[in-house]
Amino acid sequence: MTQADRDRLERLNSMLKRRGIILPAFEIHGGAAGMYDFGPLGGRLRNKVNQIWLNHWLSQGDIVEISCPTVTPFSVLEASGHVGEFSDFVISCLACEQASRADHLLEDIHPNPDSLSMEELANEIASKNPACPDCGAVEWGQIEAQNLMFSTTLGAGSSGRQAFIRPETAQGMFTNFPALYRHFRQRLPFGAVQVGKGYRNEISPRQGMIRLREFNMAELEYFIDPEENSKHDFSKWSTMKFNLVPDSSDTINTTIPQALDDGIIRHPSVAWFMASTAELLFHMGIDASKLRFRQHESTEMAHYASDCWDAEILGSYGWIECVGIAHRGCYDLEAHENYTGQRLRAWRDWPEPVQSKRTLVTIDGSTAGPAFRSQAGAVKEALEKMDAPPTTYPFKLTLSDSSIVEIQQEHVKIEDIDETINGEWFTPHVVEPAFGIDRIIWHLLDHAWNEEEKNGEQYSVLSLSPSVAPIDAAVLPLMEKDGMDELALNLHASLCSMNGIQSSHDASGSIGRRYARADEVGIPWCITIDHQSLDDGTATVRRRDDQKQIRCKIEDITLHIRDGKMNSLFE
Amino acid sequence: MTQADRDRLERLNSMLKRRGIILPAFEIHGGAAGMYDFGPLGGRLRNKVNQIWLNHWLSQGDIVEISCPTVTPFSVLEASGHVGEFSDFVISCLACEQASRADHLLEDIHPNPDSLSMEELANEIASKNPACPDCGAVEWGQIEAQNLMFSTTLGAGSSGRQAFIRPETAQGMFTNFPALYRHFRQRLPFGAVQVGKGYRNEISPRQGMIRLREFNMAELEYFIDPEENSKHDFSKWSTMKFNLVPDSSDTINTTIPQALDDGIIRHPSVAWFMASTAELLFHMGIDASKLRFRQHESTEMAHYASDCWDAEILGSYGWIECVGIAHRGCYDLEAHENYTGQRLRAWRDWPEPVQSKRTLVTIDGSTAGPAFRSQAGAVKEALEKMDAPPTTYPFKLTLSDSSIVEIQQEHVKIEDIDETINGEWFTPHVVEPAFGIDRIIWHLLDHAWNEEEKNGEQYSVLSLSPSVAPIDAAVLPLMEKDGMDELALNLHASLCSMNGIQSSHDASGSIGRRYARADEVGIPWCITIDHQSLDDGTATVRRRDDQKQIRCKIEDITLHIRDGKMNSLFE
Repeated sequence: MTQADRDRLERLNSMLKRRGIILPAFEIHGGAAGMYDFGPLGGRLRNKVNQIWLNHWLSQGDIVEISCPTVTPFSVLEASGHVGEFSDFVISCLACEQASRADHLLEDIHPNPDSLSMEELANEIASKNPACPDCGAVEWGQIEAQNLMFSTTLGAGSSGRQAFIRPETAQGMFTNFPALYRHFRQRLPFGAVQVGKGYRNEISPRQGMIRLREFNMAELEYFIDPEENSKHDFSKWSTMKFNLVPDSSDTINTTIPQALDDGIIRHPSVAWFMASTAELLFHMGIDASKLRFRQHESTEMAHYASDCWDAEILGSYGWIECVGIAHRGCYDLEAHENYTGQRLRAWRDWPEPVQSKRTLVTIDGSTAGPAFRSQAGAVKEALEKMDAPPTTYPFKLTLSDSSIVEIQQEHVKIEDIDETINGEWFTPHVVEPAFGIDRIIWHLLDHAWNEEEKNGEQYSVLSLSPSVAPIDAAVLPLMEKDGMDELALNLHASLCSMNGIQSSHDASGSIGRRYARADEVGIPWCITIDHQSLDDGTATVRRRDDQKQIRCKIEDITLHIRDGKMNSLFE
Repeated sequence: MTQADRDRLERLNSMLKRRGIILPAFEIHGGAAGMYDFGPLGGRLRNKVNQIWLNHWLSQGDIVEISCPTVTPFSVLEASGHVGEFSDFVISCLACEQASRADHLLEDIHPNPDSLSMEELANEIASKNPACPDCGAVEWGQIEAQNLMFSTTLGAGSSGRQAFIRPETAQGMFTNFPALYRHFRQRLPFGAVQVGKGYRNEISPRQGMIRLREFNMAELEYFIDPEENSKHDFSKWSTMKFNLVPDSSDTINTTIPQALDDGIIRHPSVAWFMASTAELLFHMGIDASKLRFRQHESTEMAHYASDCWDAEILGSYGWIECVGIAHRGCYDLEAHENYTGQRLRAWRDWPEPVQSKRTLVTIDGSTAGPAFRSQAGAVKEALEKMDAPPTTYPFKLTLSDSSIVEIQQEHVKIEDIDETINGEWFTPHVVEPAFGIDRIIWHLLDHAWNEEEKNGEQYSVLSLSPSVAPIDAAVLPLMEKDGMDELALNLHASLCSMNGIQSSHDASGSIGRRYARADEVGIPWCITIDHQSLDDGTATVRRRDDQKQIRCKIEDITLHIRDGKMNSLFE
């Protein structure tokens, strides 16, 4: 980052804090590293981004929203692999005892240190001898993996059991698979989304909104049958070109369907979510020239994943991963199935039923009925689950209620049967687009913020898309007298009473100062109430983006704001 | 609860789970007490309730939304009083060692056990000898206060510091007071809301959605000047009567402005939020006959609160507190100010400036300038902060940069000055409406769920208000052939593509079965596509609430669904 970039970043952060968009959390208590508040303007920006995200995916018609607790029992995250794997590698300076992330020490030395294994990191540090960022010494202790989940206890006292605050929202979609499968009446593909908090107890939070300990995230798990051809419609994206960085070559500029045809993107659902993600980001206001997709190298990708692309956005901190779109295979559902013994599968009908012979072990009703009486049904069920006929008699059989009975040969009948098999159970595959909402919000602000000089003073405009702007319009009474203020307050009240619309009422300072205040936080429209307004019910509307002004009926203005069609007034 | 009520509750819970509205969380892993998932239908219900709640308050025009981290440093919650006070009283059975909540043991014995102090609880248990709910013994150990916050650690290793997952969202509004005060340009009253998770590590979670360990909550902190007359408009509520249970008398049925005039409700802002809360709950679908407001008794209320009313809703678990509306005085801001030393105040202009004389200690520039050079300004600042003239010379003075200088008498000038004082700093008071979103959702479902017999079978209809119904319309192709299914899928897609609208496409089973499935989860409108639809572009619309059917143009149906005006088609 150049000094000029650092200065710009500092001015932007100062504006965000001063105007109540993004503030260091708990600041009156001295703050907390890696935590931010969305303030009086930022809160609404965050909500709008979340709702746009939700509406975008729910509008597909085969995706639903769920919401799960963030405090998660140990077993769920042991099954998912997070207890074992969700770690950073830490190494302590022998001189000052300060712990550092091993990969951070190698950032100026190695091109991609966060793809290194623990052993590779240890070797690199031993051979390259990076200096301790705190004291400058170059003596390092043992490297260690440190789990990044926040730990807590569910329940009190001796009955308490270990739990974590979730590192991601995705596990909720996997543990809810049975409910989702039922909801969609056993038909794949379908998806589920969750928008909410994720937690990662970073060793050294940094880069502002980029590396947080508590973050806003939004994930989508799309469940597909790996043997079924997907029916994605790419026609909307047949000509739009993107910068793609494949794992094996330099950046290419091509369309997403072309990259799919060329085998660069390895799965149509991954390609479809890349395209749809780009559309969503552009709608929110991300600058198209500052988006690229980077494919994970095979060493970077989890062993079960078959393709993974990061949507990276260029901003003050360089290219930052803001969305990950991964084909996760059957890993997650299988992991929970193996751990819990609960079946997490979907049924696939075969095109043609298959005839097959098999040996069935069952009861001989004439002898087993009298012998087991009310348990006879349970005995039958348990016998029929046997893969092969018993080899010795008598033997002990465990029933579904965990009781144990002794089975004699006379109770058993062995039959060769013909079966018609119509299909099979299989574990669905999952394609997962995972969004870092804070990182996206950061880049929306970063891309929208423009500084210029105006009459010798610094002047800044936040050109947020009206779809995410926290305030839709500013109502400015020219003076607080003669009824202008009352008319302005009425207009303010009537705008705020419209669903989803927020206005701000600003009566202090010159109109120029008030325009500047509105521009600084991205209010798209300023409405000035003056003497003429009192006479004829018109007001001056000023457009943020070109500072053009027109005069219209106040009624027309409110209707056009409600409908999101203000630009048409300027045509 | 009667056996019939228990049976109804069981059937309702079973429907909610089967249909993916509310499910026990982490069920494939054996579940977790006091935690629920909002499933494929419940997720959207929760989101709609949250957004309606937000829009209701934001539409006031002087209220903003903020969003803060849930993981909260120790100091914030020590300042707020939660470290000391957020506890339940627990007592262990000496026979089986099971811990019980002391107040729960007295529920059949005492009218209001949760208002008792620790000592009172101990005395009641000693004298009444309740039996242990687990083993039936009546030997109890010492009663103890147990803090209910989930504890965790912020940061790793030796640099980690103690933190909690927040017990409420309110603290975020208090720690953000400086940003809020700046945003509203130093003008009271104003409010801030936050919708999000709250956490309470219950000793014995129970009653389904009523007593959760992780819950959805929504709080509003409205900051007012205690000396300014509030300007609430009660005209909307001048005739609507409510059941109020004052702390000192039996239930009365009266209007809210009347109760305010009679001094039963003690503050106009409390009264205004009670009325506005009722309006919001009715809009969501709460049955007006099942709402009452109960005033806290003075022993039940926090010592700093001057009035507190619970909105209680009647449902399967009896009257349940779903909203608390409390006048909290200046307690919260003062607590954080005292703890942090940061000023959390507002400025009040006096009607007339006041002239006053005071003694000013300052520097004698002619001597102090040469003596202190570049420090002279800092010396002046430190001297002018002295409350009274120094009594001995020379003396040591600490400057703002912590350096210490020696001051001689010749450096000091003492002046009697006339001052004009225009106003004063004061700590705003707070009125806080706090909503339990899960409890409200529970009651929306409970009030909406009606069972009847239909052709000898159990039939249930969930009469949710369209404002919260998770699915707006069901699209039902009469048969999956001749193009009916394609037309239905197109209609489904076009409905889902409209902002905020969700439809479900259901092609399986008889139309009667599909109507029943839609009624069971509260879909207000069923649209059947049949042969005639293919010819003339019309479809049959069925209204859930009276099962009336009409035939309309499909285009008209989609427009009316978009605009939330379907009933007008039936007029």
